[in-house]
Amino acid sequence: MNEVIVSRLEALRQWMRLHDISAFIFPSTDPHAGEYVPDHWKVREWISGFNGSAGTAVVTLTRAALWTDSRYWLAAEEQLSGTTFEVMRCSRNVATADELAEWISCEAGFSPPLGGVRGGGVGIDGWCVSHSFARSLVKAMQTHGLKLRQDVEPASQLWKDRPALPVNPIEIQPIEYAGETATSKLQRIREAMHALGANATVITQLDDIAWTLNLRGTDVHCTPLFVSYLLLLPDKTVLCVDPQKVTAAVQQYLDSINVCTQPYSSIASLLAQNSKQPGLRFLVDPSTTNSAICDQLYMTGDEAVATTVIEGECPVTQMKAVKNDTEIAGYRSAMLKDGVAMVKFLKTLSQLTREGESLASLDITEMGVDKLLTSLRAEQEGFRDISFDTIAGYGAHAAIVHYEATPDTDIPLERHGLLLLDSGAQYQDGTTDITRTIPLGPLTEDERRDYTLVLKGFLRLCMAVFPDGTTGTQLDVLARYAMWQEHKNYGHGTGHGVGSYLSVHEGPHQFRMNYVPAPLHAGMTVTVEPGIYIAGSHGVRIENTMLIQPHNVVPGGSWLCLEPLTLCPIDTTPVIRDMLLTDEVEYLNRYHARVREALLPLLNDEDDRQWLIEATAPLSFKL
Amino acid sequence: MNEVIVSRLEALRQWMRLHDISAFIFPSTDPHAGEYVPDHWKVREWISGFNGSAGTAVVTLTRAALWTDSRYWLAAEEQLSGTTFEVMRCSRNVATADELAEWISCEAGFSPPLGGVRGGGVGIDGWCVSHSFARSLVKAMQTHGLKLRQDVEPASQLWKDRPALPVNPIEIQPIEYAGETATSKLQRIREAMHALGANATVITQLDDIAWTLNLRGTDVHCTPLFVSYLLLLPDKTVLCVDPQKVTAAVQQYLDSINVCTQPYSSIASLLAQNSKQPGLRFLVDPSTTNSAICDQLYMTGDEAVATTVIEGECPVTQMKAVKNDTEIAGYRSAMLKDGVAMVKFLKTLSQLTREGESLASLDITEMGVDKLLTSLRAEQEGFRDISFDTIAGYGAHAAIVHYEATPDTDIPLERHGLLLLDSGAQYQDGTTDITRTIPLGPLTEDERRDYTLVLKGFLRLCMAVFPDGTTGTQLDVLARYAMWQEHKNYGHGTGHGVGSYLSVHEGPHQFRMNYVPAPLHAGMTVTVEPGIYIAGSHGVRIENTMLIQPHNVVPGGSWLCLEPLTLCPIDTTPVIRDMLLTDEVEYLNRYHARVREALLPLLNDEDDRQWLIEATAPLSFKL
Repeated sequence: MNEVIVSRLEALRQWMRLHDISAFIFPSTDPHAGEYVPDHWKVREWISGFNGSAGTAVVTLTRAALWTDSRYWLAAEEQLSGTTFEVMRCSRNVATADELAEWISCEAGFSPPLGGVRGGGVGIDGWCVSHSFARSLVKAMQTHGLKLRQDVEPASQLWKDRPALPVNPIEIQPIEYAGETATSKLQRIREAMHALGANATVITQLDDIAWTLNLRGTDVHCTPLFVSYLLLLPDKTVLCVDPQKVTAAVQQYLDSINVCTQPYSSIASLLAQNSKQPGLRFLVDPSTTNSAICDQLYMTGDEAVATTVIEGECPVTQMKAVKNDTEIAGYRSAMLKDGVAMVKFLKTLSQLTREGESLASLDITEMGVDKLLTSLRAEQEGFRDISFDTIAGYGAHAAIVHYEATPDTDIPLERHGLLLLDSGAQYQDGTTDITRTIPLGPLTEDERRDYTLVLKGFLRLCMAVFPDGTTGTQLDVLARYAMWQEHKNYGHGTGHGVGSYLSVHEGPHQFRMNYVPAPLHAGMTVTVEPGIYIAGSHGVRIENTMLIQPHNVVPGGSWLCLEPLTLCPIDTTPVIRDMLLTDEVEYLNRYHARVREALLPLLNDEDDRQWLIEATAPLSFKL
Repeated sequence: MNEVIVSRLEALRQWMRLHDISAFIFPSTDPHAGEYVPDHWKVREWISGFNGSAGTAVVTLTRAALWTDSRYWLAAEEQLSGTTFEVMRCSRNVATADELAEWISCEAGFSPPLGGVRGGGVGIDGWCVSHSFARSLVKAMQTHGLKLRQDVEPASQLWKDRPALPVNPIEIQPIEYAGETATSKLQRIREAMHALGANATVITQLDDIAWTLNLRGTDVHCTPLFVSYLLLLPDKTVLCVDPQKVTAAVQQYLDSINVCTQPYSSIASLLAQNSKQPGLRFLVDPSTTNSAICDQLYMTGDEAVATTVIEGECPVTQMKAVKNDTEIAGYRSAMLKDGVAMVKFLKTLSQLTREGESLASLDITEMGVDKLLTSLRAEQEGFRDISFDTIAGYGAHAAIVHYEATPDTDIPLERHGLLLLDSGAQYQDGTTDITRTIPLGPLTEDERRDYTLVLKGFLRLCMAVFPDGTTGTQLDVLARYAMWQEHKNYGHGTGHGVGSYLSVHEGPHQFRMNYVPAPLHAGMTVTVEPGIYIAGSHGVRIENTMLIQPHNVVPGGSWLCLEPLTLCPIDTTPVIRDMLLTDEVEYLNRYHARVREALLPLLNDEDDRQWLIEATAPLSFKL
């Protein structure tokens, strides 16, 4: 029995009875719809004990359940044992509104509806759910005669040792890295708002705020963001942020760009006040803006002064995705540093595989790989952090797509098979994301075949030339074509945008089978990362971060291509040479020549140099 | 001055004043949302004189305009000269509701709105517009203070020599070609309706009706359809059709499958009567069902007996797309016959290019090509008609995507350059669609290069293996990848379904860049037809009709591939051998071996046999 969770549930149910709540929903998001959630908002983990990145908990007066996707089914069973929480296995990474409403209605012991609304309300914290999801919840609940309530939430009262909101100081991202002043960005945002008929908006996503103001923070895991809201009104720009985070230098900077500050918690009252200005036309992105904020805008009570709400994508999403020349130069600099660290790491690993050949295991584990690589990155200028938790999966571990080695699972590498290594760093001039799959000795025929199929897909997409505005969904198949011939596939997308010293996963564009309408344009970054995962055996993924560039600029056309930003050899020893087509070999050789040319001048150690020369040697065209 | 059109416009405007109509819209569709429109419904052509397949005419009291896409801009200018119609160049093949509303509102001399609805109504014939387009028109007109009226239409009164509705006899498509009884199909349709919660529907698309009942007709150009509606009610099935079309044999057949008949014109009153049955849940496809029919279902006046309307795709669309074994055997038989006709044609053409070599021109024109090929097809058993107007474009004419040679444009072929030939036939056992681009002598380097790029795209898509349920949008890029490398592209889709002795263009799936969500499944037919068109110079397109098949059936997976149904050599003489990759050559050689094996036993003439053996000779792997 997990006494801690059971007593929390007891307190929660007491609170629910007091507030006439029959079920409470705990999503895994925060008020800023981010990928990583600061500890303060890990309410779902507090009530359930489940610490996966995706999952939805629901507690009724008699039962408790947690929805999560296949990545976390086993972990959830383990973490929730003894808590009375049941694991609900769902196919998406979060439960849908219909799934939740149906379960709450049918499974949780409510009496059938007698017309009108049944029992107590179903609660959710309106701050931690997007307006569009709340909207779908309201509708789904109505269908079952249930009423959604967003006006009360239990954690502020019941969570005794709740972590405070972070108060880490904000830093300025200098213009030599940002490439465009905040004043210019704010002006462009206002122009884009006006084009949509709006004269006000609230920016809630932390990377959008950081990009807009050229500020960075340390509030979010692996990502240089700070907790805040940015309110653009017709006559002023207001940053809602904890005053403790604003250093004198930042205050002076904000004054200089005419951005005033208000406490973080004042956003609701600010919106309530300002939404009553006549003539206000408020741009709202309902898919990312939290429901509590939207409520201030959608419901003004008095119709005469009702705010006009215009729904649309936050203009920053698109602007931020297209990098300026300074940001691109920053990526190039960051990639050189990251390439040097990767080469040093790969050389060391190859030495380890040669040393002490009588022993089965290498003198390094999966966690050791992470530690070594991170220390080599940390030596590089401008290194601030890793950009996500390193995935170092050896052998069968590599087939677990989101594997992260822990002391419980960590294993030493051996002198055979494949190590999948997906990692990246935050340098002040750019964010990196790279995957290499490294042979540690003899490979099976299946490992070599899968390695070659992944490489073929990687190369085919990397070589693509395409018209401006093509979507990632239209191109995604190029990375899968070769492996599909052998009935292999992977369940994740093929690529995502990468921020400029911001989030390692950045939208709006993606390479993905499922329809993503965001068009690709020159100046966007995007990863190419196909994979093959054979459960219980091995996993392969190869990933470069690319820059979308104009291709041989010609009159009358606007053709794009992918330029590799990542500079690191791709191991060719596992390749089954016969399976590669001529143009694939040509591309790979060109890429390796480029890597060698870029990194060799930066390597002083003769071993490193020699390793790089060998690792980038061209493949022959004929066997 | 075009007196005929001008006097028709005068009569129309008099009629409009009488009915308080300020503008009347003439779309190019008919009540059955078909691709080809019987003459009776060519009202847009009657009022304007423009005979293109796509275009929207609008007449106000003072002005007249016609919207059409780039294919028809020049033809429209010519045909409309002297009519007072202005040509409105639009990018899609029909004007959008917004375009029409805006023009009618701003351009046509209406006074500005003073609140409420302005001037007279904007008329459209509700029978000749889909419910969804009518819905978008109502909305667009409202935005401009205009009111859409669908209750009056002028043609029935003003068009004096209007062609009657066709009364051609209906024929039975025997079970040895259809492969499934109408009774079984009707049962499956009703099951699919029930799964959507419906117990009634009206089928309005003529190919859906023909497929469902295993009946064919001759009412529509190049397509074996008959004009009718099919009404499925909980207790009976009603075919609304002109009694003159129903022969004694067909009447007996309809009796045997429990389908009763009613006059074609009674559909509205039948719906009005039957929609008042309590408990009726009517499935309606608003994108294909005409607005006049929908009005009978959506507006019943008395709420107590209101019909429940369930919007969804007509289940026949999906069922018809997946061919049964008998239909597939029929395609194979039809393709053999079509292949024999094509080989005889190609051999004759190659003889013509060799004969009389001193003369610049061959003894055949573009129209002659059509005539010769059609006559060779007509010799084949079960030939009924061509399946669309032959596109035989020589030289620069081949760059006009929808070129159809007329006595005015017809030119003799010469001993150089490329002839693009897109054609097909209706055999009783299957419909064919094939494009070959034929070199008539020396080619330019550009012609050879473009030919090879198109061939590469064609082969790459033909070779694809993909998971069941992949969409055509996800695969389309495979046909464009090679030509995109050289900044070439084409403006049409890459492929469409083909009916079984039905429409040559059949949905719901397509290969197309624009998002088409319909998934691909085994048993569907689909064309692969990339092209390159260089205005004023040349055009290349290569097309086979393919069958989607399971690929190497293995446990646990559902993988599909494309099997070529079309059996006809693809000319390899224009190919720049260096540009082909190994797997492309392998596929092409396998295809040619298959064609030779299939057709050689069917050819008696030694010249034909010799030609086929040469035309299907394998390409060498090394130069």
